[in-house]
Amino acid sequence: MTDPTIKGLTETLRLMRTKSELTRAEVTDSTGWGRSTVAARLDQLQASGLVVPSGEAASTGGRPPAVFAFAPGARVVVAIDLGVTHARVAITDLSHQILTSHLEPIAIGDGPEAVLGTVAEIAARLIAEAGRRLDEVAGIGIGLPGPVDHATGRPTNPPIMPGWDGADVRGRLTELLGVSTVLVDNDVNVMALGEHALVYPTVDNLLFVKVGTGIGAGSISAGVLLQGAEGVAGDIGHVAVLENTEVACRCGNTGCLEAMAGGWALIRDFKALGLDVETNADVVGLVRAGNADASRMLRTAGRYIGQVLAACVSMLNPSVIVIGGRLAESGEHLLAGIREVVYGRSLPLATRNLRIVTSSTIGGAAVMGAATMVINHVLSDAGIADLL
Amino acid sequence: MTDPTIKGLTETLRLMRTKSELTRAEVTDSTGWGRSTVAARLDQLQASGLVVPSGEAASTGGRPPAVFAFAPGARVVVAIDLGVTHARVAITDLSHQILTSHLEPIAIGDGPEAVLGTVAEIAARLIAEAGRRLDEVAGIGIGLPGPVDHATGRPTNPPIMPGWDGADVRGRLTELLGVSTVLVDNDVNVMALGEHALVYPTVDNLLFVKVGTGIGAGSISAGVLLQGAEGVAGDIGHVAVLENTEVACRCGNTGCLEAMAGGWALIRDFKALGLDVETNADVVGLVRAGNADASRMLRTAGRYIGQVLAACVSMLNPSVIVIGGRLAESGEHLLAGIREVVYGRSLPLATRNLRIVTSSTIGGAAVMGAATMVINHVLSDAGIADLL
Repeated sequence: MTDPTIKGLTETLRLMRTKSELTRAEVTDSTGWGRSTVAARLDQLQASGLVVPSGEAASTGGRPPAVFAFAPGARVVVAIDLGVTHARVAITDLSHQILTSHLEPIAIGDGPEAVLGTVAEIAARLIAEAGRRLDEVAGIGIGLPGPVDHATGRPTNPPIMPGWDGADVRGRLTELLGVSTVLVDNDVNVMALGEHALVYPTVDNLLFVKVGTGIGAGSISAGVLLQGAEGVAGDIGHVAVLENTEVACRCGNTGCLEAMAGGWALIRDFKALGLDVETNADVVGLVRAGNADASRMLRTAGRYIGQVLAACVSMLNPSVIVIGGRLAESGEHLLAGIREVVYGRSLPLATRNLRIVTSSTIGGAAVMGAATMVINHVLSDAGIADLL
Repeated sequence: MTDPTIKGLTETLRLMRTKSELTRAEVTDSTGWGRSTVAARLDQLQASGLVVPSGEAASTGGRPPAVFAFAPGARVVVAIDLGVTHARVAITDLSHQILTSHLEPIAIGDGPEAVLGTVAEIAARLIAEAGRRLDEVAGIGIGLPGPVDHATGRPTNPPIMPGWDGADVRGRLTELLGVSTVLVDNDVNVMALGEHALVYPTVDNLLFVKVGTGIGAGSISAGVLLQGAEGVAGDIGHVAVLENTEVACRCGNTGCLEAMAGGWALIRDFKALGLDVETNADVVGLVRAGNADASRMLRTAGRYIGQVLAACVSMLNPSVIVIGGRLAESGEHLLAGIREVVYGRSLPLATRNLRIVTSSTIGGAAVMGAATMVINHVLSDAGIADLL
């Protein structure tokens, strides 16, 4: 069972984060502690730097009651978004404010030793630039472009991360930066957390879909990120969208969603039409330049994605679907295809309040979600002890 | 914010339910209350009857400490499973023990006034038979064979419940039985809760699929039932499993899962083959009698269901899928079709520990789930006040 002191401390911090400041009396009301216990706990929080005195509340006569506030700058967070060709590193405070950040081109295939080394160097430099110290880091959050074993934080047979299978990401980052709290998840879950925290904090049921080289989803249900039994919930890229086809997928099956609508499949199909594309960015460029074939193909890709999302909508009944990832930047054609099928193929009750939108944090959701993982953890019953 | 007294009371009850009994010192440890507060709260719980003294713990010298236990018989629950042609009513205690139950044939089309009247009469009779009083009822839980608006507990355009659209089920049962706490959900969610509570209490990610006249699912994810934004999560019967088809569904679309594999569709297809069936029970009977055509058709239905479940497995990553409902009683053919597609079309990581099984609570899951809804609520922070 959780120590009741810990519960009281996290509850007090939660209230301060919501209400901006609390009087001693409000702390007493929220915890049920006696006066002397409240005083001791507030002292403890002040000693940790997480709570500071904050002016004085309006008095009803006599000595004005002391007022306390959460101090989000007491600790910093290292947030890392690792892609196949980029690493974005940000230093944030405990209220998601980005203090400083950097985008570095990398090659994920260089392996964990080289890539994590680069990332750690950048993080150390950014922390110094922000005028902070490594011992002020509450934790490191990192999103990886592949499946992650939830229990160990290790990549599990990641198809586009050669050399990373089973890599001890947590252990290596702890070694490099001397920070014991390291949280790892796949990029899509991290983007879902970031989009939720930044743009839709009051939406309880949100589905984030990343359409890039592969296709994946992260679901916030009743306010909580779905992980599933093995931590692979949302891995929808290999759902069959076409039966009796010979279109081969990277996974060995045929007719998978990503074999019809993922970035690599679109590049294949664009080339077959004689269009000159090598990267997702090329695909996006052609569509945005108004190429009719390219636009039509993005709409068709959207329809395939919509087919799988219609099943997800029936199963999860979200009120917002956010389409992110590199190909979401191609504009309305992809979205139109998705909407056509989802609205056409779902029961009215499931779609009457459903919005399907493009990510409004292009490039930023992942790093923000990596910070969210850490903030949620270190201010929870399970994580607060390390900050005291 | 929740009253800290309430939190302490529910936490104490939760611990007693898990550990069977607690000493005063253990209550102090778990709540952080002082001695006099613990004494007052234990008095309050004893006065409510929810907690009773329970012998004495081994003493370390001096006066033996008093020991307390949860008393599940302090209140009773009315659990109702309403189907198209049956009503099952059970009286349970607060630990899911069924005290008495009754199965009554009904016609759902008689409407809420008649059906709820019948059900209330049966409940009142059963309560008396169990030697209990109406004022000892903690709450009523009821599962309905159609979509339910989560906020109001009212059926919403239920396709097989003529006359029930928008019916005030809560209000009517409160009126008839004088019980203010009434919880309503659709039958599939209730069955998922029941199967989870009875058979898989330690499984955190479970998907329950009802294959009857229609097809629906209820998902327990991270231990919690998914409701979705509108309370219609799991309504998978109208996901498209066949494109470019003219097979019409009851919903107005074509190629829906239930139009290919639901009970009404199977009866249609069996008849087209000249087989003499009128009900789901007839279909089950033919398959169990070894009819080769019937067995083949159930396997095909299983494959369609598997197609949708493969998408659900990718999205939710459950570790157990339970197949229930009338047609699940037809034996291995349906299950074989489901397994073939789910295991064949999912990524290895999502299925390496996935079990797909037939419900082991045939007929009993729904009523048990209805009781679970009530027990979870009345012993929670939101519901406990009514019992004190």
